[in-house]
Amino acid sequence: MKNASVFAAELPWPEYKSRVAGGCTPILIPIGSMEQHGHHMPMHVDVLLPTEFARRVASETGSLVAPPFTYGYKSHQKSGGGNFFPGTTSLDGSSLVNALKDVIKEFARHGNRQICLVNGHFENSWFIVEGIDLALRELRWDGITDMKIMVLSYWDFVGDDSIAKLYPDGFLGWDIEHGGVLETSLMLKLYPDLVWLQDAIDHPPAEFPPYDVYPPHEDWTPSTGTLSSPKDASAEKGELLLNVCTAGIVKALQKEFGERSPASAAATAAQ
Amino acid sequence: MKNASVFAAELPWPEYKSRVAGGCTPILIPIGSMEQHGHHMPMHVDVLLPTEFARRVASETGSLVAPPFTYGYKSHQKSGGGNFFPGTTSLDGSSLVNALKDVIKEFARHGNRQICLVNGHFENSWFIVEGIDLALRELRWDGITDMKIMVLSYWDFVGDDSIAKLYPDGFLGWDIEHGGVLETSLMLKLYPDLVWLQDAIDHPPAEFPPYDVYPPHEDWTPSTGTLSSPKDASAEKGELLLNVCTAGIVKALQKEFGERSPASAAATAAQ
Amino acid sequence: MKNASVFAAELPWPEYKSRVAGGCTPILIPIGSMEQHGHHMPMHVDVLLPTEFARRVASETGSLVAPPFTYGYKSHQKSGGGNFFPGTTSLDGSSLVNALKDVIKEFARHGNRQICLVNGHFENSWFIVEGIDLALRELRWDGITDMKIMVLSYWDFVGDDSIAKLYPDGFLGWDIEHGGVLETSLMLKLYPDLVWLQDAIDHPPAEFPPYDVYPPHEDWTPSTGTLSSPKDASAEKGELLLNVCTAGIVKALQKEFGERSPASAAATAAQ
Amino acid sequence: MKNASVFAAELPWPEYKSRVAGGCTPILIPIGSMEQHGHHMPMHVDVLLPTEFARRVASETGSLVAPPFTYGYKSHQKSGGGNFFPGTTSLDGSSLVNALKDVIKEFARHGNRQICLVNGHFENSWFIVEGIDLALRELRWDGITDMKIMVLSYWDFVGDDSIAKLYPDGFLGWDIEHGGVLETSLMLKLYPDLVWLQDAIDHPPAEFPPYDVYPPHEDWTPSTGTLSSPKDASAEKGELLLNVCTAGIVKALQKEFGERSPASAAATAAQ
Amino acid sequence: MKNASVFAAELPWPEYKSRVAGGCTPILIPIGSMEQHGHHMPMHVDVLLPTEFARRVASETGSLVAPPFTYGYKSHQKSGGGNFFPGTTSLDGSSLVNALKDVIKEFARHGNRQICLVNGHFENSWFIVEGIDLALRELRWDGITDMKIMVLSYWDFVGDDSIAKLYPDGFLGWDIEHGGVLETSLMLKLYPDLVWLQDAIDHPPAEFPPYDVYPPHEDWTPSTGTLSSPKDASAEKGELLLNVCTAGIVKALQKEFGERSPASAAATAAQ
Amino acid sequence: MKNASVFAAELPWPEYKSRVAGGCTPILIPIGSMEQHGHHMPMHVDVLLPTEFARRVASETGSLVAPPFTYGYKSHQKSGGGNFFPGTTSLDGSSLVNALKDVIKEFARHGNRQICLVNGHFENSWFIVEGIDLALRELRWDGITDMKIMVLSYWDFVGDDSIAKLYPDGFLGWDIEHGGVLETSLMLKLYPDLVWLQDAIDHPPAEFPPYDVYPPHEDWTPSTGTLSSPKDASAEKGELLLNVCTAGIVKALQKEFGERSPASAAATAAQ
Repeated sequence: MKNASVFAAELPWPEYKSRVAGGCTPILIPIGSMEQHGHHMPMHVDVLLPTEFARRVASETGSLVAPPFTYGYKSHQKSGGGNFFPGTTSLDGSSLVNALKDVIKEFARHGNRQICLVNGHFENSWFIVEGIDLALRELRWDGITDMKIMVLSYWDFVGDDSIAKLYPDGFLGWDIEHGGVLETSLMLKLYPDLVWLQDAIDHPPAEFPPYDVYPPHEDWTPSTGTLSSPKDASAEKGELLLNVCTAGIVKALQKEFGERSPASAAATAAQ
Repeated sequence: MKNASVFAAELPWPEYKSRVAGGCTPILIPIGSMEQHGHHMPMHVDVLLPTEFARRVASETGSLVAPPFTYGYKSHQKSGGGNFFPGTTSLDGSSLVNALKDVIKEFARHGNRQICLVNGHFENSWFIVEGIDLALRELRWDGITDMKIMVLSYWDFVGDDSIAKLYPDGFLGWDIEHGGVLETSLMLKLYPDLVWLQDAIDHPPAEFPPYDVYPPHEDWTPSTGTLSSPKDASAEKGELLLNVCTAGIVKALQKEFGERSPASAAATAAQ
Repeated sequence: MKNASVFAAELPWPEYKSRVAGGCTPILIPIGSMEQHGHHMPMHVDVLLPTEFARRVASETGSLVAPPFTYGYKSHQKSGGGNFFPGTTSLDGSSLVNALKDVIKEFARHGNRQICLVNGHFENSWFIVEGIDLALRELRWDGITDMKIMVLSYWDFVGDDSIAKLYPDGFLGWDIEHGGVLETSLMLKLYPDLVWLQDAIDHPPAEFPPYDVYPPHEDWTPSTGTLSSPKDASAEKGELLLNVCTAGIVKALQKEFGERSPASAAATAAQ
Repeated sequence: MKNASVFAAELPWPEYKSRVAGGCTPILIPIGSMEQHGHHMPMHVDVLLPTEFARRVASETGSLVAPPFTYGYKSHQKSGGGNFFPGTTSLDGSSLVNALKDVIKEFARHGNRQICLVNGHFENSWFIVEGIDLALRELRWDGITDMKIMVLSYWDFVGDDSIAKLYPDGFLGWDIEHGGVLETSLMLKLYPDLVWLQDAIDHPPAEFPPYDVYPPHEDWTPSTGTLSSPKDASAEKGELLLNVCTAGIVKALQKEFGERSPASAAATAAQ
Repeated sequence: MKNASVFAAELPWPEYKSRVAGGCTPILIPIGSMEQHGHHMPMHVDVLLPTEFARRVASETGSLVAPPFTYGYKSHQKSGGGNFFPGTTSLDGSSLVNALKDVIKEFARHGNRQICLVNGHFENSWFIVEGIDLALRELRWDGITDMKIMVLSYWDFVGDDSIAKLYPDGFLGWDIEHGGVLETSLMLKLYPDLVWLQDAIDHPPAEFPPYDVYPPHEDWTPSTGTLSSPKDASAEKGELLLNVCTAGIVKALQKEFGERSPASAAATAAQ
Repeated sequence: MKNASVFAAELPWPEYKSRVAGGCTPILIPIGSMEQHGHHMPMHVDVLLPTEFARRVASETGSLVAPPFTYGYKSHQKSGGGNFFPGTTSLDGSSLVNALKDVIKEFARHGNRQICLVNGHFENSWFIVEGIDLALRELRWDGITDMKIMVLSYWDFVGDDSIAKLYPDGFLGWDIEHGGVLETSLMLKLYPDLVWLQDAIDHPPAEFPPYDVYPPHEDWTPSTGTLSSPKDASAEKGELLLNVCTAGIVKALQKEFGERSPASAAATAAQ
């Protein structure tokens, strides 16, 4: 095997062709964003994290990782601070839906029947659903009816046990984890050079009323851009998160797509 | 005042014109769906409930209620059972976004500057956000920059105290309340003739893994279409819900749009 | 039969499923608008009337009535006064086309093969045609080629005999009947509480040159918003119209979709 | 003046620029179709006729004629026989709307403020309305608010007197004039080499029920494709039609856009 | 054979039907623009030339010529001077793509399987590619998989030998031939009355840096609008171009679509 | 200055904000593709190369590099082998246009007025033009009229001198350089671990007729996917290319956007 990469775009096409032969090599597509993540983290956290989860999961399951979507849907005030921050760079819903639809259909054209969208940006969720639905519709028109598409956000694999360890003082929900303990801990573990914890600003968790207003009241968002404080983040917590999420995603893929040893994947590729 | 209705479309245009003069009469737009709600409830629950909340809130705040959106976004397995049920009749995301954008812009053309979208169908949420964003963008191009648009889902106004009373055995989240205690109790209170509780089927709450699959595994959804059992629903719980949600929404509107007595609204109209 | 309603969305899904089993239960979809109708009528006349026609026709033919489209295409000066009136709230053509396309496809997904669009707003006409054409195209791509879709506007069923009775002084065409004798008489018969005839303003029929201008010369439209005077409207004329149109539509449905007694429809439902 | 043509695209750009200087040179845009017109006429009748009307009107009013739209909206059974004939070649509604919107905006970019759409194909009507509305909206966003756009179909300028002469046995409406006396007479007058009257097939006028069905019952359309017989067509009737329609359109343009002698137009151009 | 025209829209539909029977009559669709071509030529050069090439090629190959696209994509500075000139009247990319998609699909509906797009405006190129791709996709969904679509720009058939004769002082590329020797010579040969060579302005060839800027630096384009001087144009060069391009296109069509004598085409038509 | 990266998404938002203050920091957006590049190179060559050019240029000019577009327009047979290869994963034209439009508008919202699109995939060219045009239009509607957007493809900066050195046996045009000496040499210089030159397959340059056919004749493309042989590629040639293109792009940016020392950029950032 000349090229051991799990990144599909790092392969020459004949290698890719042999790796995906049979249609049972899951294609993992990271979907991110360019979005402010506070004073202490860069703006592509939502690309880096799902791409790294996808890489690890691909290694364990004989899957391939597609190039990430580097831009995502508009930041929502209650889960990303709002789309008014400088640096946050977002797509209209229809742009994301259509690009995702196209990419899914292309991977299906290559013969792939197992695709998993690995989301790193909460706001993408419903537009991913729509992109999948439209892709499945058009693939059906092409006579392709055996697609199986998973979609997941890595944080949904953190169970109650882990939450208890990560948030000993109580957990307030994933939405306000924007730039908080979850993402900062993972970044500290995986990309410590891209975290400037000394610049992180401590503040109480954001509190929002049970409705939204547009244009947003900008002062509802903490001025840092984070929705909860990252001060309790640590590389150790990052390692815990990395482990439970990776294990959970691996198990989910195996359940849905069947187990397939990386070795057999490599063997297929080497033929 | 010849016509006391709070429904905008029940007024002749000169009456509507005088009611909205000044731009400070909130327009409440119910956004629903046609979606299965189990064996015991009709398929327009998501239209009836937000329309009735809007009607009550309008009466207390001097607002007007626009015609409801009678169709909504595709039913999601984890919050509505999935879009594969017979009867469930849904729009593509872009259709909903564009229709909503158009309607918001038209109400702005009439001079209204305060709009509140009253959502009754969880899956509409993100497409409502996009519809608002696109409407505000185009209104800005028309030089209209003083719009204030609220969006809310009535269930978000149920506080922890009420939850404790409504769900004495524990609360599992709004998403699986599809066809369960929340909606059934409200319907028993408001539209008892449209509930056939004897046909309701008891079952344990739906459990889903932390990811989605498309096309959906249909057997993940209870065969009833409901995601939790309505057996503990009652008109009394419905009354509680009706009261707390109405009061909460009234208060939210007054906070965002300013207090405006129904009397003064009537006075304006009578001029 | 637990639920005798002909409104599809008032049924629980299992009831709906049994009613439409076999695909031969016509689905009637009322298509309306929110549009000014003069000083004496509310703005949802174009929803109320086709919905009521659909309800009556459904009762006689064993059909079901889908939720109405509550917003329609832009009011045209020569048939609705023009889209500049306050209160008139319209969709772009593409929004209406796409929403209608989606809804037709969903009813086809449920197994229905007989659909009838019951139009209450003249300006919707061509966009209904396009919505049907696009729906049939996509259904064909899904292998569904046995759809039969009717489209009608209730006023087209008023024959010359009736016209002679209704307009003893001469008939000037359906287009200028906006807010005039036709609609007012029907409303007086069906929804007398929503007609304020004392507020109706008498005026000569609108006269237009043989071309249009955009933006419209607003003074071409009578300042009332009506295009002909409703002063000769009466509940008696409404009853005549109701009878001839209902009978005509029933006969048309039976001709195109086959006769199907309401009893047999009920029997199917009761199984 | 080096080039006396009224066709804008036959001019070099500096000549065009001087002709339209000031914005008060009406631009006439013929909108046609490629549609069957029976056994005796070619398929671009709906392009030839409005283009020729535009040419004559332009000569008398100092206007310019833009290149025609050579394809139009889908043929409707009751006004064009239906879109199932071989040869009939049509656009989706949105394609026509968007192309027309673009072209109107471009002429406005050149400084033109007076545009007249000269329609030759009934089915284009509503999509022209939408194209104009969208163009005016976007031009408004560009700060251009002084546009005046006329739209007309030449046959609407035939008055009752002329109808009495043209149809001594009674007139059945413009919709079934497809390929009948109106169009055939005009073609005989203007393009006799493109009429093969010996191939025309006589038949009674088409009769349709007061509703439409899709896919169409093809046998509702006479097998010739014409909706009424052209047998009574003549070049003399064509001349009458040509004169009354040209005169009517000239008068309408002068009323809406102001009188402007062709001489003064030429003078402008000669500067 | 009653009608010898090769223009499809000049035929009555029964004649068209017999000409295209079997699907092997190539349909040639000219795609042009309305674009400034200097002081010495009209603005529909890009319609006239491909239409005339198509006519000649059709005569020699038994093909038919469809109505031309009279508007094209936006003029690009380096190949058409830029879209800021008065007179240049262009479509958005999506408008051109969709209209072309529709027209291709309609010709396929008539049974045609051989289509050739004859482009006269460089900027159309990629949008033609997309229009074809989308048409083939949708035709595939309709079960039509035997389409063969050619696309060509006539100037690509000028070989090195001809270039040597036409540009004895050196050839600088087709892009800057806008309004230069190529087009002017062809127009002198084919439409001498539409060339005013005395108004042509001599200037050195346009020079552009290896990048583009938007909005364009208008002064990069010679003020004439032409990108190279037409002073060396002649009818003789036009004849040479006409001959080599026509012959090349004829040969290409015969290679791709098979040889088919015009006589046999006529015979088919005469049956 | 805490973070010296030129990649915008590697910065925290306050740092980004200070770097772009004043609007005169050029934003370089690499536009790539996932496309087969022969047996010897990976499929993201068109992302890697423009991103690296952008990085170098940004360092020398005080610019910032935005996240790359990882997917591009469909591979064209004559410049990329054709879109039928496994691995090649492309967007519809409208998807690319709209995503690019959105991203440009977002950077403008941040206050940036200087943007440069750095293209690495020939087929993107026209859709980039359209994306820019639509973005500028909508920005104009937002009152932003001082944008300056450059677009370039790095290979256009290779001058004749360099071509003579790189292609001593003659140069056949950039289009058939797909996977050939140009790209392979650059990859050997920049990413030698991602080139497997031993797997490269030597073959004569692809030859194509002067027209295209769709669906493509797959056998027109060399079976390797490359359009010319990479055998003469070398890291030395890559260094030459890297130097001339980088220098050329730097000079172009300075000419269009003004000179701005990286030091002053850093100084701005440090404030």
